Amino acid sequence: MDRISAGIVGVTGYTGSELMRILLGHPQVDISVITTTSKEGRMLSDVHPHLLNVHDQVLVGQEEIPHSGLDVVFLALPHGVSQRYVKEYSAEGYKIVDLSGDFRLKDPMSYERWYGVEHICPKLLNEAAYGLPELFREEIRESSLIANPGCYPTPVLLGLAPLIKKDLVDSDICIVDSKSGVSGAGINPKPATHFPRMNDNMMAYSIGTHRHTPEIEEWLAPFSKHRMQVQFTPHLIPVTRGILSTLYMKCEGTDQSTIDDVFDEMYGDEPFIRMRNESPTLGGVRGSNFCDIHAHLDTRTENIIVVAAIDNLVKGAAGQAVQNMNILFNLKEETGLRAAPLEP
Amino acid sequence: MDRISAGIVGVTGYTGSELMRILLGHPQVDISVITTTSKEGRMLSDVHPHLLNVHDQVLVGQEEIPHSGLDVVFLALPHGVSQRYVKEYSAEGYKIVDLSGDFRLKDPMSYERWYGVEHICPKLLNEAAYGLPELFREEIRESSLIANPGCYPTPVLLGLAPLIKKDLVDSDICIVDSKSGVSGAGINPKPATHFPRMNDNMMAYSIGTHRHTPEIEEWLAPFSKHRMQVQFTPHLIPVTRGILSTLYMKCEGTDQSTIDDVFDEMYGDEPFIRMRNESPTLGGVRGSNFCDIHAHLDTRTENIIVVAAIDNLVKGAAGQAVQNMNILFNLKEETGLRAAPLEP
Amino acid sequence: MDRISAGIVGVTGYTGSELMRILLGHPQVDISVITTTSKEGRMLSDVHPHLLNVHDQVLVGQEEIPHSGLDVVFLALPHGVSQRYVKEYSAEGYKIVDLSGDFRLKDPMSYERWYGVEHICPKLLNEAAYGLPELFREEIRESSLIANPGCYPTPVLLGLAPLIKKDLVDSDICIVDSKSGVSGAGINPKPATHFPRMNDNMMAYSIGTHRHTPEIEEWLAPFSKHRMQVQFTPHLIPVTRGILSTLYMKCEGTDQSTIDDVFDEMYGDEPFIRMRNESPTLGGVRGSNFCDIHAHLDTRTENIIVVAAIDNLVKGAAGQAVQNMNILFNLKEETGLRAAPLEP
Amino acid sequence: MDRISAGIVGVTGYTGSELMRILLGHPQVDISVITTTSKEGRMLSDVHPHLLNVHDQVLVGQEEIPHSGLDVVFLALPHGVSQRYVKEYSAEGYKIVDLSGDFRLKDPMSYERWYGVEHICPKLLNEAAYGLPELFREEIRESSLIANPGCYPTPVLLGLAPLIKKDLVDSDICIVDSKSGVSGAGINPKPATHFPRMNDNMMAYSIGTHRHTPEIEEWLAPFSKHRMQVQFTPHLIPVTRGILSTLYMKCEGTDQSTIDDVFDEMYGDEPFIRMRNESPTLGGVRGSNFCDIHAHLDTRTENIIVVAAIDNLVKGAAGQAVQNMNILFNLKEETGLRAAPLEP
Repeated sequence: MDRISAGIVGVTGYTGSELMRILLGHPQVDISVITTTSKEGRMLSDVHPHLLNVHDQVLVGQEEIPHSGLDVVFLALPHGVSQRYVKEYSAEGYKIVDLSGDFRLKDPMSYERWYGVEHICPKLLNEAAYGLPELFREEIRESSLIANPGCYPTPVLLGLAPLIKKDLVDSDICIVDSKSGVSGAGINPKPATHFPRMNDNMMAYSIGTHRHTPEIEEWLAPFSKHRMQVQFTPHLIPVTRGILSTLYMKCEGTDQSTIDDVFDEMYGDEPFIRMRNESPTLGGVRGSNFCDIHAHLDTRTENIIVVAAIDNLVKGAAGQAVQNMNILFNLKEETGLRAAPLEP
Repeated sequence: MDRISAGIVGVTGYTGSELMRILLGHPQVDISVITTTSKEGRMLSDVHPHLLNVHDQVLVGQEEIPHSGLDVVFLALPHGVSQRYVKEYSAEGYKIVDLSGDFRLKDPMSYERWYGVEHICPKLLNEAAYGLPELFREEIRESSLIANPGCYPTPVLLGLAPLIKKDLVDSDICIVDSKSGVSGAGINPKPATHFPRMNDNMMAYSIGTHRHTPEIEEWLAPFSKHRMQVQFTPHLIPVTRGILSTLYMKCEGTDQSTIDDVFDEMYGDEPFIRMRNESPTLGGVRGSNFCDIHAHLDTRTENIIVVAAIDNLVKGAAGQAVQNMNILFNLKEETGLRAAPLEP
Repeated sequence: MDRISAGIVGVTGYTGSELMRILLGHPQVDISVITTTSKEGRMLSDVHPHLLNVHDQVLVGQEEIPHSGLDVVFLALPHGVSQRYVKEYSAEGYKIVDLSGDFRLKDPMSYERWYGVEHICPKLLNEAAYGLPELFREEIRESSLIANPGCYPTPVLLGLAPLIKKDLVDSDICIVDSKSGVSGAGINPKPATHFPRMNDNMMAYSIGTHRHTPEIEEWLAPFSKHRMQVQFTPHLIPVTRGILSTLYMKCEGTDQSTIDDVFDEMYGDEPFIRMRNESPTLGGVRGSNFCDIHAHLDTRTENIIVVAAIDNLVKGAAGQAVQNMNILFNLKEETGLRAAPLEP
Repeated sequence: MDRISAGIVGVTGYTGSELMRILLGHPQVDISVITTTSKEGRMLSDVHPHLLNVHDQVLVGQEEIPHSGLDVVFLALPHGVSQRYVKEYSAEGYKIVDLSGDFRLKDPMSYERWYGVEHICPKLLNEAAYGLPELFREEIRESSLIANPGCYPTPVLLGLAPLIKKDLVDSDICIVDSKSGVSGAGINPKPATHFPRMNDNMMAYSIGTHRHTPEIEEWLAPFSKHRMQVQFTPHLIPVTRGILSTLYMKCEGTDQSTIDDVFDEMYGDEPFIRMRNESPTLGGVRGSNFCDIHAHLDTRTENIIVVAAIDNLVKGAAGQAVQNMNILFNLKEETGLRAAPLEP
């Protein structure tokens, strides 16, 4: 079986560390090079002490990614920075999985409006496939630049797409109320993520202004007859990992079994989607690549309420990136991603 | 200044314990009798060790509430049980603050449908005032039986009423996405509230079926021209105290300053409502009787998003009960309720 | 009753905020001035949003502490910085409660060794009283400069002193294993206090090198015939507030009832010490000025194990400071400090 | 490569669930039968919903363990119950890994004294090997009944044995201060493990009386010239998984490098022991079979302080059980146990 030679660009953050954790358990991947901008020359186990005795390797500077010899490069960089490297590596002919937000929106104007930076390689936007395999598997297979989805859009799109595709939704707006663990805010400490601040606490933030809003709307569009808006409110909850999103849609004359069938039809064979007959929990997906979904029709109000949960660092980032890599290399999608959730 | 002689019926749970904590700091209240069904004869500090050296008193059986000599009785009992005592004490002429759900719905049929028990004193339902002072102060003042609001309805009604009253809402449904600390589930351990289960976890529950749904709809009705429905989804989050509710309404042609004015007009003089210009936090109200509210107009989608937060055991239960008592006895509403939030 | 005019120097941190919370509930104190080095001109409620509608006041620069008109100044500053202001205010004739570590050690050489900075007013060291009222009440009463104890030394000294004073300890070393909530690390975010780092986690730190070691040893000395050493290991636990210390001493032929009597004799009349017949909990003291103590003789091993718990921001800082102020002004020690613990 | 046919007796608790999680990732194990006393006939994914789509299997009653065809049986039962099955299965010739406390003490009298139940098969006590591979690998290899160590004794013995073996400890007592996550208290909810009780809280318990005390003393004995006592204090901390133990010993004239050498000599080749140059953390071992150890000599006091951390459900239970199984079947000890810690 062929080995895949991988590079991880930006290994010091949570996403980079999680890519390491997952790829170290992947039977066909060799991690050839791992980079950093700030901790060059240090050992991986020095930067991520939990990996001591699991694996060790020297971190090199970003510019030391070789010009040949790699099969795939994972970019775990901030938006705005990532596009520079995508431009470079794509010229090398490497397959690329970009975990930043830089290639998720097709329209460079929309990118600039929501991200506040100019896009430097707008032509590549059209080459990028949106890396949500359950919805866009064919596009991924045919691309060599994957825009790995945002953590929030992943469960939201998975929870909404089947209903919208089957035209069961009777409104042009969907309410998306999302609750995220604090690892979603990254590894750098800030007042908002200080333990005494977040412990035993919660709050909403970026109400109506979060960058994942246009991403959700853009990737719902292929499934809907008319453009849907989402009213997206993210919240921080005192949890390390996990996103649970509660989605509200008006429905037109349907029943629970129709809804169940729609999800079953779409996800019945998906290895990472688990339909639940009650609310999923964050604990139930912790450390795994699962997206757990519960869809409930309230006949009193004629609303459908969908609750969808993922581990934001796995299905919401590194796990999905590896799932995409598996598709790019014609491997079984579960390869290296079979670990059971860590519960409790 | 006159002393108020109070009884607390059912002191062993969280609500009873919180009533003790608050009333012990009230300058005009004497706690004359505290009762229990299960721990008769034990000392308060034995049942609630945190109260040792603060106050001590013997717990007596429910039947030992005296037939005269009290001014007010607080009932911190389960629904279905509470109504029996309300019937009895109301015959004694005591002022009553009932913290259960037994007198919050006016229609006994609705009570039976949502609570699954028959109402044994439906006539008293009409005498009860709904104890949300900021919205129903006059009714409270004129009653001697107060149905203390549910924990979830409190921030929801406070967040919705001004907008509905001013007819700024352009739909007949409101999405209510609520996140509650685990103390809301009571003091008795269950699998769902086991620490290894709830820690680092969250989930939705009772989707579309929670008993606080009709309570919210009933007490919104006085403010709206047409009956509003609420789509209510409660969630448990790994927090001890606090409820944060995110409320979504369609609005008709308005602007942020109109919305701000509406809230300011309604709550500008309220001692316990604090308008925020960003999301409130649970930490910011912990241990206090405040309800913190943020109202945001999303001009892109024409939705109003309101975020409202309380401490479920204080403004959502015991603190509001004491606020109601203050009204009943013509005291300043803040009396005994001025403690600053415990933050961090 | 006379009013006390107080200044708080350094109000932006947790200790300053907690001094505000407590003093706002004190019946005889007026907070005349509150200072900051970094947030001059901002409102208190802007820096500490939980205090909105509780109290508001402009923060002024450190140099704006008036040269007359105050009765007492609380210094909530970092060590090394605090001594400069103590020198200045003590010249004004103000009573001073210093919450830093600058005046806790009598020997300036020891201060320099453990704190790594020179002491600029070593003469004042002799005028300072160590502000642990239960052990040094008389010294406090006669001083006008109070060195408010460290958070860790408070429960440790209260737990050890009675046994050492009565000569029940048969070794010259005591093992002190302390577990602290993260608020003890201050309000400024650091990698070590980042929520995803501390949540669901714990660790030891500063093993054998923590600055509170010499403080504990120094203030045990007055009670012991021979100098005792402490082996002090602090730990961080995923809790906001609270320190629980487990103390181990070899004992000589004694029994449980003797031990109980010793504590009872020493603390029987103390309003803030509660003897427990099982381990105290952090929840049981949260938000209060109590120190809960349990002392257990293990007859199998002939060790005494003492477990002592406080809220580090109250009895371990701001509450104890107010208790000291009450002594300085001949008030009842409980004045303003009677609030029951916030449990759960 | 030969397959190993395994049975898990008692799969409904945390240990049973964790055995499933780990064995499902083991390349050579088939889980042939899983039993329960209370949930017969239910599906595994119904009892442990996080395992849905990972693996499913019907739970059978305890009596349905077949009389032949298995290679190994894991017993995840309460003490007192487990010995009955060990007696039975050992007659079948199955290799047994018993995760209860029933075979950890050699002396049946000691067992009865600490566990409060009679031992029904005291002869088997001598056949059992104590399953701490790093210290008793040879005994394990030669036995077919493994007493899997207690969660607390595991890091304590691993932290103490090297120093005692090399005679660096100059006292006959060791202070063992242990902090455990709440999963150690089992899956059944109790008042002590109710979320609002344990969140933001901690306490000591079973001071001087915990059953793991004699276990630690018994298995230290082979390494020491004279019998050592341990003064063991367990604490519950608001963490789901993990035990961190802080160990204190008096040492005789040694230095840090000698101590480092002693640990290095003993554990240098061990795959699951990681020596740390600062305190280990619980996050750093979460979900993994590692035991992280830091040993520090305090030259001021002449004490050695060792801090050792494990995941109580992995190295403290199911992971160690699988490590023992690997030894019994001559597999590489890391087989199926290589997963990196889940951090953050």
